Amino acid sequence: MNAPLPNAVLPTFERRALPPPMLDALKARFGQRCSTAAAVREQHGRDESPYPVTPPDAVVFCESTGEVAFVVGLAAEHGVPVIPFGIGSSLEGHLLAVQGGVSIDLSRMNRIVRVHPEDLTVTVEAGVTREQLNREIKDTGLFFPIDPGANATIGGMAATRASGTNAVRYGTMRENVLGLTVVTAAGEVVHTGTRARKSSAGYDLTRLFVGSEGTLGVMTEVTLKLYPLPEAVSAAICHFPGIAEAVDATIQVIQMGVPIARCELLDANSVRAVNRYEKLSLREQPMLLMEFHGSAAGVKEQAEVVQAIAHEHGGEAFQWATTPEERTRLWTARHRAYFAALQTKPGCRCVTTDTCVPISRLAESINDSRREADEAGLPYFIVGHVGDGNFHLGYLIDPDKPEERATAERLSMQMVQRALKLEGTCSGEHGVGLHKMGFLLDEAGAGAVDLMRQLKRALDPKNILNPGKIFAL
Amino acid sequence: MNAPLPNAVLPTFERRALPPPMLDALKARFGQRCSTAAAVREQHGRDESPYPVTPPDAVVFCESTGEVAFVVGLAAEHGVPVIPFGIGSSLEGHLLAVQGGVSIDLSRMNRIVRVHPEDLTVTVEAGVTREQLNREIKDTGLFFPIDPGANATIGGMAATRASGTNAVRYGTMRENVLGLTVVTAAGEVVHTGTRARKSSAGYDLTRLFVGSEGTLGVMTEVTLKLYPLPEAVSAAICHFPGIAEAVDATIQVIQMGVPIARCELLDANSVRAVNRYEKLSLREQPMLLMEFHGSAAGVKEQAEVVQAIAHEHGGEAFQWATTPEERTRLWTARHRAYFAALQTKPGCRCVTTDTCVPISRLAESINDSRREADEAGLPYFIVGHVGDGNFHLGYLIDPDKPEERATAERLSMQMVQRALKLEGTCSGEHGVGLHKMGFLLDEAGAGAVDLMRQLKRALDPKNILNPGKIFAL
Repeated sequence: MNAPLPNAVLPTFERRALPPPMLDALKARFGQRCSTAAAVREQHGRDESPYPVTPPDAVVFCESTGEVAFVVGLAAEHGVPVIPFGIGSSLEGHLLAVQGGVSIDLSRMNRIVRVHPEDLTVTVEAGVTREQLNREIKDTGLFFPIDPGANATIGGMAATRASGTNAVRYGTMRENVLGLTVVTAAGEVVHTGTRARKSSAGYDLTRLFVGSEGTLGVMTEVTLKLYPLPEAVSAAICHFPGIAEAVDATIQVIQMGVPIARCELLDANSVRAVNRYEKLSLREQPMLLMEFHGSAAGVKEQAEVVQAIAHEHGGEAFQWATTPEERTRLWTARHRAYFAALQTKPGCRCVTTDTCVPISRLAESINDSRREADEAGLPYFIVGHVGDGNFHLGYLIDPDKPEERATAERLSMQMVQRALKLEGTCSGEHGVGLHKMGFLLDEAGAGAVDLMRQLKRALDPKNILNPGKIFAL
Repeated sequence: MNAPLPNAVLPTFERRALPPPMLDALKARFGQRCSTAAAVREQHGRDESPYPVTPPDAVVFCESTGEVAFVVGLAAEHGVPVIPFGIGSSLEGHLLAVQGGVSIDLSRMNRIVRVHPEDLTVTVEAGVTREQLNREIKDTGLFFPIDPGANATIGGMAATRASGTNAVRYGTMRENVLGLTVVTAAGEVVHTGTRARKSSAGYDLTRLFVGSEGTLGVMTEVTLKLYPLPEAVSAAICHFPGIAEAVDATIQVIQMGVPIARCELLDANSVRAVNRYEKLSLREQPMLLMEFHGSAAGVKEQAEVVQAIAHEHGGEAFQWATTPEERTRLWTARHRAYFAALQTKPGCRCVTTDTCVPISRLAESINDSRREADEAGLPYFIVGHVGDGNFHLGYLIDPDKPEERATAERLSMQMVQRALKLEGTCSGEHGVGLHKMGFLLDEAGAGAVDLMRQLKRALDPKNILNPGKIFAL
């Protein structure tokens, strides 16, 4: 088993210098939109991971695919790293400029390029956030379901193959990206995919770029599938005597093929944190937060089946939230669980895990992880997209206490070891970044990682695209 | 626009010799399971495409991943092409040994390796056919929905990113392969993916191999998602005054988000052929053949919505098939439409098209293609997975009349041109093979095809894996 890169210490990479002629060329083209100010660089040298800030040498705010191509073309010429930056919500250190270079900020590329409601597709620039997208297409009666919690950019979500609460029904970014505009390592612009729902025409470049974490190309436009807003939506919470019961109920729901749209677990710690942070009064015991989409009758039927299953497993106090306001309140609470938990230990950082296992092994995976965390005595919380077999256990550590960090990393490693033994994955949705490079090797094996390396070398021979992430070259 | 490779003429490739030491080594290891008999070689040098038989120099019947690795390792050493062979149902010339070499017959690798009903997953050897799979897992209450019509092998289906009648609800091989065992060009064995439903761990090697048509590796085991057999299944046929009306009804069904499981179009020519071939008495006008999966109430509700939509578009004589026997009869008829159509013109071959377009453009795409076919005077038939925007127009040509072939290829090219203009694809599910290499270039553009070439060169530097397919190197 390969240990994760300890969060305290960055792997040592040689920083590559930004040659003055390149900086001059950037300034000439971008003016004020090319910044070397310390504050701007620092803001682009961090994300939600607990790694220390590692700033790029410059930040360029691009406004078009052509501008991105210009920056990457220059970078190729000078052998300088480029790091695509969306909104900075990565949890795994994706955005850190470990070898220096230029951060390409895509947040100003935030236009909805084309909506085709009649085809259930939309093309957006990479810097559009998921909340913005859903706001802007509201009038079409359609929505984009992928919801990782953070208001991430679509480009960032594609880059990490994100998913989140709706994936159990609608799939992940893997299933919902139809095509891409990508700037290659040579600074060329290519288009992948079409607007057709399926295709067998050649290698699946789209899915090669999705999840490649900025290491194979810079995505500038993304074409997505949309879905009709369901005729009826209903959300419910249900409390369980213990996590095991909540998870067992979930397993049965999935095995029966109930088309549940969301099925989220919060442990008592998360509920407690959320109550305090959001001024709610949820019962402070493990709960499932569920959502059902469909026709009015279909939603009712699904809910009845799930209610019966929950009841069998000791679930009680099934409470409905049918108005949009109530639903929004619950989901906001769920999405803020991470930040709520951080508040429970002032000044703490969070070491987050992201394992995903075959559904029948989920209870075992969560229970053993909890037991180990309890034994270690670190405060923690659990939230999970349990319908997918994916959950996050966050260890709250004092950044000034190396022993807490070491304990959290040991526990995290044990969790991953268990997930792999159960034929699962070290990362359900956050990506590898800096943190899970060792885990990836354990999971995929040296042979498969070597294939990845060969692909990387083929598409980015100078190793300028977000170097130092996913695997060591 | 690049013309397709005319079916009559194979592109000229240099055949590479099979060195006697390699043949000796194969014979020593495989004995009778290595054949150079003309009949065996010819059987492995053809598929359902109209290309002339192009036999390999030898055929090896492998029974394990280790044996495949042995063959590929030898081939790498000697620079000899290898072509994975399942059941020979390709429509695009994938299996032809255009540069000679060894056909690796995987049909004896037909074991169900592991079923995990509790996780809704199964791992099979690549030579298992889809009908065998569904037969062998019947007792689990689960099924594998992907159904391209032909009783293809799972390996072949993965290699061409196949889909078929159920894709509108369950997705294609792209969405339903969780992991693979692959023999690389170096003869190494790698595993991709896990049994978890989703993962963000590294490059998506699984989806890179899915659809790579044997050119990046030889798949020997495939892990698939399974689905609970629906509580209720109902099939219905509905006749329409014209194709346009049937397609318009389909478009509306999809736009409304009805979770229809299958939605197939047959034109009057197909119905006529099927009536004759299967001794049925369907009304000889365009029809939709639909299937609904869900709870009893859900199926009823879906069917009511669809019936109302069909009625608005002039659909009539909605007929139900609720018993498994009736359903089987209808679907058997649908699956045999291709062979039934071939019978209507004795001695003919079929030039098949496979475009797929955004759903709102489907009517236009089909209507214009029909008009052109009518004007050209060639007999043809249309069947379509219209819920996906994918349809096949088959031109029936006399193989001895080059002018018929030329006409069919011209019509096919016009269809593809139109599909690309409508932001669709030249191949929804059959793959590129030999036939659509020019079309792929038109669709993806030189830049994207060049990325594909770079990937191919990286993973198969000696170009031994099914060379000459998808693109010219």
